[in-house]
Amino acid sequence: MLSFQCDYNNGAHEEIMHRLLETNGESLPGYGDDKYCISAKEKIRKACGREDAEVFLTVGGTQTNKIVINAFLGLSEGVVSADTGHINCHEAGAIEDTGHKVLTIPHENGKLSSDSLKKYLEKFFDDEAHDHMVYPGMVYISHPTEYGTLYTKDELKNLSEICRKYDMPLYLDGARLGYGLMSDGTDVTLEDIAELCDAFYIGGTKVGALCGEAIVFTNRKPPKRFFGIVKQNGALLAKGRLLGVQFDTLFTDDLYFEISRHAIKMADKMRDNFRKKGYEFFIETVTNQIFVVLENSKMEELKENVVFEFWERKDANHTVVRFASSWATREEDVEKLNELL
Amino acid sequence: MLSFQCDYNNGAHEEIMHRLLETNGESLPGYGDDKYCISAKEKIRKACGREDAEVFLTVGGTQTNKIVINAFLGLSEGVVSADTGHINCHEAGAIEDTGHKVLTIPHENGKLSSDSLKKYLEKFFDDEAHDHMVYPGMVYISHPTEYGTLYTKDELKNLSEICRKYDMPLYLDGARLGYGLMSDGTDVTLEDIAELCDAFYIGGTKVGALCGEAIVFTNRKPPKRFFGIVKQNGALLAKGRLLGVQFDTLFTDDLYFEISRHAIKMADKMRDNFRKKGYEFFIETVTNQIFVVLENSKMEELKENVVFEFWERKDANHTVVRFASSWATREEDVEKLNELL
Amino acid sequence: MLSFQCDYNNGAHEEIMHRLLETNGESLPGYGDDKYCISAKEKIRKACGREDAEVFLTVGGTQTNKIVINAFLGLSEGVVSADTGHINCHEAGAIEDTGHKVLTIPHENGKLSSDSLKKYLEKFFDDEAHDHMVYPGMVYISHPTEYGTLYTKDELKNLSEICRKYDMPLYLDGARLGYGLMSDGTDVTLEDIAELCDAFYIGGTKVGALCGEAIVFTNRKPPKRFFGIVKQNGALLAKGRLLGVQFDTLFTDDLYFEISRHAIKMADKMRDNFRKKGYEFFIETVTNQIFVVLENSKMEELKENVVFEFWERKDANHTVVRFASSWATREEDVEKLNELL
Amino acid sequence: MLSFQCDYNNGAHEEIMHRLLETNGESLPGYGDDKYCISAKEKIRKACGREDAEVFLTVGGTQTNKIVINAFLGLSEGVVSADTGHINCHEAGAIEDTGHKVLTIPHENGKLSSDSLKKYLEKFFDDEAHDHMVYPGMVYISHPTEYGTLYTKDELKNLSEICRKYDMPLYLDGARLGYGLMSDGTDVTLEDIAELCDAFYIGGTKVGALCGEAIVFTNRKPPKRFFGIVKQNGALLAKGRLLGVQFDTLFTDDLYFEISRHAIKMADKMRDNFRKKGYEFFIETVTNQIFVVLENSKMEELKENVVFEFWERKDANHTVVRFASSWATREEDVEKLNELL
Repeated sequence: MLSFQCDYNNGAHEEIMHRLLETNGESLPGYGDDKYCISAKEKIRKACGREDAEVFLTVGGTQTNKIVINAFLGLSEGVVSADTGHINCHEAGAIEDTGHKVLTIPHENGKLSSDSLKKYLEKFFDDEAHDHMVYPGMVYISHPTEYGTLYTKDELKNLSEICRKYDMPLYLDGARLGYGLMSDGTDVTLEDIAELCDAFYIGGTKVGALCGEAIVFTNRKPPKRFFGIVKQNGALLAKGRLLGVQFDTLFTDDLYFEISRHAIKMADKMRDNFRKKGYEFFIETVTNQIFVVLENSKMEELKENVVFEFWERKDANHTVVRFASSWATREEDVEKLNELL
Repeated sequence: MLSFQCDYNNGAHEEIMHRLLETNGESLPGYGDDKYCISAKEKIRKACGREDAEVFLTVGGTQTNKIVINAFLGLSEGVVSADTGHINCHEAGAIEDTGHKVLTIPHENGKLSSDSLKKYLEKFFDDEAHDHMVYPGMVYISHPTEYGTLYTKDELKNLSEICRKYDMPLYLDGARLGYGLMSDGTDVTLEDIAELCDAFYIGGTKVGALCGEAIVFTNRKPPKRFFGIVKQNGALLAKGRLLGVQFDTLFTDDLYFEISRHAIKMADKMRDNFRKKGYEFFIETVTNQIFVVLENSKMEELKENVVFEFWERKDANHTVVRFASSWATREEDVEKLNELL
Repeated sequence: MLSFQCDYNNGAHEEIMHRLLETNGESLPGYGDDKYCISAKEKIRKACGREDAEVFLTVGGTQTNKIVINAFLGLSEGVVSADTGHINCHEAGAIEDTGHKVLTIPHENGKLSSDSLKKYLEKFFDDEAHDHMVYPGMVYISHPTEYGTLYTKDELKNLSEICRKYDMPLYLDGARLGYGLMSDGTDVTLEDIAELCDAFYIGGTKVGALCGEAIVFTNRKPPKRFFGIVKQNGALLAKGRLLGVQFDTLFTDDLYFEISRHAIKMADKMRDNFRKKGYEFFIETVTNQIFVVLENSKMEELKENVVFEFWERKDANHTVVRFASSWATREEDVEKLNELL
Repeated sequence: MLSFQCDYNNGAHEEIMHRLLETNGESLPGYGDDKYCISAKEKIRKACGREDAEVFLTVGGTQTNKIVINAFLGLSEGVVSADTGHINCHEAGAIEDTGHKVLTIPHENGKLSSDSLKKYLEKFFDDEAHDHMVYPGMVYISHPTEYGTLYTKDELKNLSEICRKYDMPLYLDGARLGYGLMSDGTDVTLEDIAELCDAFYIGGTKVGALCGEAIVFTNRKPPKRFFGIVKQNGALLAKGRLLGVQFDTLFTDDLYFEISRHAIKMADKMRDNFRKKGYEFFIETVTNQIFVVLENSKMEELKENVVFEFWERKDANHTVVRFASSWATREEDVEKLNELL
């Protein structure tokens, strides 16, 4: 069975497994005070071009979004997000569980446009009753988005400018950040993100790790008591080494970027194949996620040999499905898929 | 440097590392639907003697306590705990963060006595103003306790009886459960716990795993939307296999019990050594934690070669410190420590 | 200056003031145990045709919505509402503050249609990932709506049927309930509401009281610890008599209905006047709120003598404004307004 | 039947009722923008000797404590309180409902001593694991306390100094503030409180109003979005006039102080009477609450003619009960009680 279902079907990159094994017998302090956590954070700061950044290692994406958003927002404030944002759709209400509203704006290709953000804010402050409403306290974007699309550097700049004007932190969910940075279709670097956002996280779980995300604060300090907030949200592992060793490995010799690059190459090949065979794309993407419209009969036929993800019904006879590549995708599997198309 | 600082300084048991490596290349479904999670749960049910139990795998202890307690309690209800309970002291307010009060009762050797619980409940319901007070909604105990002590079977039975009388779930925090079950000083089995508690968790992090705890519901069903609650608390790993493989390994061929037994043997040896050399114990324990009173000069001397944990000042010249064994403690290190005493 | 700004500009109905004064010197038990609270609840049960109902008196609308919705919902559940619902717009995030998402559906004339609710629920349960999403746990409607519109009995029946099918409480926000029940344009009675909803509140603040709302549970019991929930949300007045006397008065000799009827008569007269003079209505209403499109020059002219509420800009030259009548509206003021139109 | 049960059995002071009636017909803006709210706040600022203070009017005490404490605390922070503090005992978990722990210190005559606070803080910061614990984020005291006792000016100064040293807001619950300020046994003025605390509330409900408390911020600004926080906690009345008129009346011509003084005179007389007849006091108080030890037979006898409050059992034959005076206590009732003693 071929699997293009998602980017978290496989274990960890072999180098990570190797390092976990190699360091397994060492006796190390807990709660993130071990040398691997310290080294990982140092390497991440360097990769971001920001020696002054503060880095925290957490376990998963929903948890990370919950922690950062809750820590940034004050009472009666909400987080502005495209309506397709992961925090609005697939986190089982994690944000609301912290007492905060997700303030949604209709997405444009999965993105929050600076125009619509601007209009939203102007309308809000224009409203005489806005003191009775939830204040927009920060902005959440994902990059790549849930639709596999990317912000351009100009788009990020515009969002950043608006956020600074309104004194709202700009926070970027980088669950698949590597796949965004290594796309041929982007002009955005990790340094750009560090400069334009106030905080973001570099996704490990979907980019080669068993688990783990790295929160980076650049233009704002971590909110007060951030260590305790991480702890009370269950993101502080007693064996912090599990996260430290993984991120230390990912940020040694550019491993994170190389394996991301591989996923993009595999996705590009798949996209070419779909295009050549005349398949319709639901949305144009330049990252590791590909959204294709399939005839239902073709879909059923493919299912016998390939695992992929149902996205949505298009009409009575057609369905939108998603194929995802990852750091672990084998070129031979991409070729086998092509034969089945 | 010898380390008896805690039971989470080392990586994972080698068999776990071996199995993680062995299964690493497999393509598996996410979020706990993989075969290792399924198998692990089945083995845990068997070990508990309860085929009808429901098992959930989570990442860490604070997170697990937060999830179970929040899910069991209704609004305006609190959880009753010994004042020394981990949830009351060292979880950075995780329980209160869910909106619930920890209702404390003074501990007896780290334990919640059924007598004091009974008196607490009688006084509560006797109080004419109790409708203005936080209702005792469930009971939390840890076994072993934070002081390394254990409940007897009779003590557990009495607590269980009171909880059933008052229709309150009894929940047991088993962060170090293996070390409790394998102690010579216990008459409590895993089956007893499954029978007498409504829910409990079997600690993995401190007993051989890199991370991971297994929640077991026996005499109550998991609260409604439990899957979503686990998700919104960041305890649902995309790569659930990380937890599945670990617990599947721990519950294959009694590994969990064997490595716990080893830790107890090492602790017993250390206890004997301390006793023979005339050291005073702060509290008598039968598990992997040993609390000893050291003269400050001796403490400073030992610190040069041994890592152990400060517990509390006793007087101007004496300090209480903790030595902990674990599944990873080497007999030769215990002997080396003895030479230094 | 004429005021048609809203329905809470005036104090209380004179009969309420009279009764508050008359009973002021009596020494009464606190926290709702006084005879006026008891009598008020009894009269409300009768008015609803439900001797088995349970009634709680609270202070204000936002508070009441917060309490009932929080008490009905479980963790990881949200409340379904029209996007124009008061809880979604003008309660400063009170619902999210309790940890729950407001799940919005586009309104139709301020209402939640049973068709769109049905489609929403079908789509939700159809989604393979719905376990990662916020569960629809209950339905919120307001009657009259924020747009002054009313549900028909058939519409309520359809909503009620869907809610029962999906085992979700149906909760009705009756901040202006009197003005809905006394409209010529309704076929819905208080008994209908008691039969078709699980809980609702009868608004006092906007219908003659100084403050106060009456929550009525008919087809579901009040959630566990409801008294404590009311208390911890600051809705339990030490001097519960303030609410008891007011509601006892409102539900003596049909005062609540009579004063509501007066407001409707005044509104009908105003509507006629606007219509006769050729004003355009933004939305057709049959309750005490009238939404009219004004030329900006006319709006400025009127503002010199009349207070009314800005609703929204229509275009460069026109504005939507709201005129509201209430139990306190004087016929002579309606006539004076007419002269100014 | 004589009633000394509590200080909220009666309605409002007649002057308040008079003013409510007198202003009832006026058309006023809602949500606290009316002239009476504005005037009341101005008068309160003057009474506090602090023109720069910010004042907010809320409905009840539990609500007020919940709002201020939640607004002052950050995530993973708790509020330090004597274990007898109202927030710890009789608010149904309102503070924990906001996500914050009440950090208790054993009381001394109902008070939090500066010595025990100092020790608590030193121990906390001394603890190596304090980052895993709930941070003390502010201090709560009540004055008069729940036991009817009062802080001296020196005691307040010492608490204030510690709070400033640790950068923690000092908040004073003045549910019965008038009865504290007018006691012969105090050297604390309202100006002192304004100077030494960061925020406090002046209780209306128990001192002559139907409902209402006035929060005063002096040495700290109201936290961000405080208006929205008040709103989302149901403390913003649509008819804010109800609070405005009451506090405007209470702070006109020193009414608040005069009626408090009356209550103290009545209490002093009662205390004398108890003393003369040889009754034992459970605790010595100088405010409107008197705690007396009664023989059970005497208690039963008194109950036939007098309402008072059960406090706690002393022994098999004796009970501690509370007699409270208030602004409404009649001298003749005090005399009648004396005859029954």
